Amino acid sequence: MTFEFDRDTAITARGDGIHDAVLAPGWVVGGGVNGGYLLAIIGNAVRDQLAAEVPDRGHVDPFALTAHFLSASTPGPAYVETRVLRSGSRFSTVAATLVQDVDGTAVPRIASHATFGDLDRARDPASDAAAAALGLALPPPELPPLAECVESRDAPEEVRKMAPLLQRFGTLFDPSTAGWAIGKPSRQGVLQGWFRLADDRPLDPIALLLVVDALPPTTFDLGMPGWAPTLELTAHVRARPAPGWAIVRHRTRTMAGGLFEEDCEVWDSTGLLVAQARQLALQPRARDRA
Amino acid sequence: MTFEFDRDTAITARGDGIHDAVLAPGWVVGGGVNGGYLLAIIGNAVRDQLAAEVPDRGHVDPFALTAHFLSASTPGPAYVETRVLRSGSRFSTVAATLVQDVDGTAVPRIASHATFGDLDRARDPASDAAAAALGLALPPPELPPLAECVESRDAPEEVRKMAPLLQRFGTLFDPSTAGWAIGKPSRQGVLQGWFRLADDRPLDPIALLLVVDALPPTTFDLGMPGWAPTLELTAHVRARPAPGWAIVRHRTRTMAGGLFEEDCEVWDSTGLLVAQARQLALQPRARDRA
Repeated sequence: MTFEFDRDTAITARGDGIHDAVLAPGWVVGGGVNGGYLLAIIGNAVRDQLAAEVPDRGHVDPFALTAHFLSASTPGPAYVETRVLRSGSRFSTVAATLVQDVDGTAVPRIASHATFGDLDRARDPASDAAAAALGLALPPPELPPLAECVESRDAPEEVRKMAPLLQRFGTLFDPSTAGWAIGKPSRQGVLQGWFRLADDRPLDPIALLLVVDALPPTTFDLGMPGWAPTLELTAHVRARPAPGWAIVRHRTRTMAGGLFEEDCEVWDSTGLLVAQARQLALQPRARDRA
Repeated sequence: MTFEFDRDTAITARGDGIHDAVLAPGWVVGGGVNGGYLLAIIGNAVRDQLAAEVPDRGHVDPFALTAHFLSASTPGPAYVETRVLRSGSRFSTVAATLVQDVDGTAVPRIASHATFGDLDRARDPASDAAAAALGLALPPPELPPLAECVESRDAPEEVRKMAPLLQRFGTLFDPSTAGWAIGKPSRQGVLQGWFRLADDRPLDPIALLLVVDALPPTTFDLGMPGWAPTLELTAHVRARPAPGWAIVRHRTRTMAGGLFEEDCEVWDSTGLLVAQARQLALQPRARDRA
């Protein structure tokens, strides 16, 4: 069996650092293709390029991936141009641009830099224990049991039509931050819940690049429905996730000048923080990034 | 009078998007040149390139700047290669790489992407008021008065020799998070204080790129002295700062796998959040990024 995520983020090396992909319509939400899905495709291209160019390093995992969103992607063919900027023993850094051809013109969609390494080799139980003793292990929020949470796939039909993306996830929202779905946003600027992929494809470091942008924008919880285009997103993968339900929290603390930041944290089923991300996004009143 | 910051971050366009700079020895700390100082030089190069290439847009301010640190810079000549990736009405995005020639080889130091716009045009008092009413204006920490804080330039002579950088700043540390200076770290993972440049050069959006990396690493407060090399740093400038003392807070919440994140927030003298940054850095035990 091939999982949806693997089928739809597959890439094919064309040579010269270029990797072809096909953006699948199932990952569309509102006016564009989900950003986290695109980051996972970029992550796959970077990993493949490093495997081809510096095979002995074993730099298979994203540690830090930064992405500036230049224009909205559309379903269909795309490609990732990669260039290895530096490769050391612990880390390699790659420039990667997601591009789509539009009427014969190459239009850049996302400009990215990615620093890859090996999360298993980076693990250091003694140092982790010392850090935990210092209180440096951010705990997950306490969520109600799965059965008391709200399934995103239960959304009304018109929402599901606009957001086929919802069908890819098995997100179960904490009801205390899901009131926006019935017109009663909590106005805390928080969205959180249990996360898994709809077909139970296990999470791994590349899939975490998707997870950090998988929930609706926190502006939904602030009573501002609508499209909130991302200007920039940085993801840090901190550990390889254990199998099972993950916990995801998105939070906004500052909105000003028409922009807001959205902080995301992801914990695995053992309560370990496995990814952090922050994005800077436009308030929904701006209908499009001009 | 020319301020130190303006003198030492000056750049000269060479053509083809290349901007020459000279990294000044006064910004050295420990094993390398301060990262925030280098980001300000990159910011100046991006601004100049946009002014030359898309002069009508008025995209003079950094909104989001991402930087992957590839190798340690040294005082002396350097240059920034820039390439405008996209320019729209509100934002332009530029790829910028800081490079130094080492024995005839061009060695990349920092790979960066920067999205610039106009902070004044982005201001929207009505929307800001609505956001503030929602509690979306992160307040600064309460600090003791200036006279009760600890001056960084009072460090012992051996520290000052290793860190000429300290002389560039007029930082006054909150004594509750300055115990590390006398061997008594608070172990909270927090460093905070009042900030100004030593010669009182007023802060502006480019200078904020320096401010977000101006304090010692939070690992000092965790009882781990030593060099903490940055892997990646993302800075978001949220507003043009008002004149006067700024407040800076650095905080670490998660250390794992030999890495820690350091979140920085900067408020201006009116209490407005003007910049946010997060960096992913190596724990001090790793003496160098290999």
